[in-house]
Amino acid sequence: MPDVTVTRRLMFNAAHRVHNPALSDAENLRLFGKCNNVNWHGHNYTLDVSVRGPIDERTGYVMDLGALKALVTARVIDQADHRNFNVDVPFMQGIIPTSENIIVAIWRELEPVVRPGRLVRLVLWETPNNYVEYSGE
Amino acid sequence: MPDVTVTRRLMFNAAHRVHNPALSDAENLRLFGKCNNVNWHGHNYTLDVSVRGPIDERTGYVMDLGALKALVTARVIDQADHRNFNVDVPFMQGIIPTSENIIVAIWRELEPVVRPGRLVRLVLWETPNNYVEYSGE
Amino acid sequence: MPDVTVTRRLMFNAAHRVHNPALSDAENLRLFGKCNNVNWHGHNYTLDVSVRGPIDERTGYVMDLGALKALVTARVIDQADHRNFNVDVPFMQGIIPTSENIIVAIWRELEPVVRPGRLVRLVLWETPNNYVEYSGE
Amino acid sequence: MPDVTVTRRLMFNAAHRVHNPALSDAENLRLFGKCNNVNWHGHNYTLDVSVRGPIDERTGYVMDLGALKALVTARVIDQADHRNFNVDVPFMQGIIPTSENIIVAIWRELEPVVRPGRLVRLVLWETPNNYVEYSGE
Amino acid sequence: MPDVTVTRRLMFNAAHRVHNPALSDAENLRLFGKCNNVNWHGHNYTLDVSVRGPIDERTGYVMDLGALKALVTARVIDQADHRNFNVDVPFMQGIIPTSENIIVAIWRELEPVVRPGRLVRLVLWETPNNYVEYSGE
Amino acid sequence: MPDVTVTRRLMFNAAHRVHNPALSDAENLRLFGKCNNVNWHGHNYTLDVSVRGPIDERTGYVMDLGALKALVTARVIDQADHRNFNVDVPFMQGIIPTSENIIVAIWRELEPVVRPGRLVRLVLWETPNNYVEYSGE
Repeated sequence: MPDVTVTRRLMFNAAHRVHNPALSDAENLRLFGKCNNVNWHGHNYTLDVSVRGPIDERTGYVMDLGALKALVTARVIDQADHRNFNVDVPFMQGIIPTSENIIVAIWRELEPVVRPGRLVRLVLWETPNNYVEYSGE
Repeated sequence: MPDVTVTRRLMFNAAHRVHNPALSDAENLRLFGKCNNVNWHGHNYTLDVSVRGPIDERTGYVMDLGALKALVTARVIDQADHRNFNVDVPFMQGIIPTSENIIVAIWRELEPVVRPGRLVRLVLWETPNNYVEYSGE
Repeated sequence: MPDVTVTRRLMFNAAHRVHNPALSDAENLRLFGKCNNVNWHGHNYTLDVSVRGPIDERTGYVMDLGALKALVTARVIDQADHRNFNVDVPFMQGIIPTSENIIVAIWRELEPVVRPGRLVRLVLWETPNNYVEYSGE
Repeated sequence: MPDVTVTRRLMFNAAHRVHNPALSDAENLRLFGKCNNVNWHGHNYTLDVSVRGPIDERTGYVMDLGALKALVTARVIDQADHRNFNVDVPFMQGIIPTSENIIVAIWRELEPVVRPGRLVRLVLWETPNNYVEYSGE
Repeated sequence: MPDVTVTRRLMFNAAHRVHNPALSDAENLRLFGKCNNVNWHGHNYTLDVSVRGPIDERTGYVMDLGALKALVTARVIDQADHRNFNVDVPFMQGIIPTSENIIVAIWRELEPVVRPGRLVRLVLWETPNNYVEYSGE
Repeated sequence: MPDVTVTRRLMFNAAHRVHNPALSDAENLRLFGKCNNVNWHGHNYTLDVSVRGPIDERTGYVMDLGALKALVTARVIDQADHRNFNVDVPFMQGIIPTSENIIVAIWRELEPVVRPGRLVRLVLWETPNNYVEYSGE
């Protein structure tokens, strides 16, 4: 059977502050500028979750996208939506919440549990003008 | 000369919490649900600023959109971008930061100073699925 | 209090066929072309529901958009989503399912029940290149 | 019958230079900045043409959008697409090609010929961040 | 010469029903839920066709995108647009019309005839929130 | 550290004419059609610049996207925005300004200077319906 990649897009809103607690306030401000604002700021994040595998002859699906949505909602969206990445989100404890670190943490949440098919790519849009991609490498 | 409406779209990111300090925590939670999250959440806001007036025969413009962008940036974007609406933004002090209240406050910042042409409409998108409009009435 | 318009966007998918049963097949084909295809075709519809009213001082809301979403979902989306407008949708019985007729029927479903605030505008996108608007007139 | 507004969106690409030949080069540069570049620049324009009228009971249409598309294509798109607004476009001869002037000129091309229904609004996007509207006033 | 990938996006509207005729109605309903609706539903599909190859020094093109559009229109869009995937579309006869199966069938239509350059990727959006990709593997 | 790809999107507007001066006017018209219009046409170009590398533990960044934006603005946007690709743009001298050739020229401008991380992909949208990709091969 052909190998197809299927993607489900989900959105969530969160606050964050780009801040490394191991550095001084002055160094944080120099490195992160307005993204370091002490009272936080936030984004409407868009997450594309891509799963690859052979088409199941019985269903015509690589994976039921309703099941994928439910899985990502439970593991990621319910943890992060309307929350603060620095304070509230279990899978981000102790990690600077840049998009790069968020996407790797989401990968670690999802990769072991996405079945059938395998997680092959995440894309996370922080704004309409910047996004990050990760494929587990 | 014909009366044309010109619009400039700008974006900014901010944190907020929908919370009425005059009410109990339980009442706030009941009214606002996850939007009341104590550690904030945030959005990529999109703001459309519309100005109407006759076309200036010499320039072919109702208003120079570069000048409009500079004005909105100074009065609104620089105050709100990468900030927290409940804590950091001067024109929102003491106001519950719903989209409805934010757009009325932005109107009050911009209406007296937009010239030539008159401010006729603001549209504020909080997410790709909800937005508010205000025309000063 | 200022009068603000708030909008909630929702999406649904449906099949339809533009066909007037009072006319001959030849006349239907001449009038509607490929939109008359006997085995149906379909669209991802996008619906913007706009409600206007004064801001409630206690909540900062014109209307709770979660409540609006629930109302539109029950009255419109649950009836039309993944259905056939010519066959399955109660509020379209006996009506040619053009976007114009669909939006008027949705207005009649929603206008009496949207509270607080009053329904002031519906916009229905049939494709990214065409949409209809209705304000109850 | 209810009065509904129907809109057809069309796109075209064109070059232009914002320049008033009655003014000096220095004055043009001062007024228009980079938009005055002597060797032109260009845009992907998006045009929304809105027509309002009662729904025809026989068709369920205000107006056949295929007929509207054909009309706008013949009168506007075929004149402007892949052309230069300052040099090539008959309906812009002697007019500074700002979006404001373009939309009024398009209105004058379309208003007398759009039938049935009446032309009620044009929206012209010059970039994803600015657009103009005209309603014939 | 450098190897560049060029993509042409096209849209079409179609009805379908996710249904495996080899299974019982109850099993179909269990597997496919509302996507199994007996009277069909439909979508605005967006198809991105990507072709890769060296740049032709004489034209600066990998492939004339007008020619690519004509080819995809003849082989795919004219077969599927305003049609029913389960009933009307020759290249989908006997195949469950999931996005996965549709994209593989489109690949088989296009891969042998796209020249110059080689077909390297198809992306098919079923809704703004889900899409599938296929590269012939 | 994980290898993540980060992308910054930027926009610019430019005029161009697809024309090979080594060929006759008749041959140019035959090959390029309306894209060969002697008085130019233009586009709103969208450029996605993607950089890959390990996450810097101190910042959580692969690369500061503000620095990437500044670099692309200086090397590409300031050269091409509100300009004519055939006449004004230094890095396109003597090159037919198709999207394919433009993206390869942009790659050659950016690849040697993007640090830290390495440039891994450019995507250039000429219109909402066509785009090109290049990865340096």
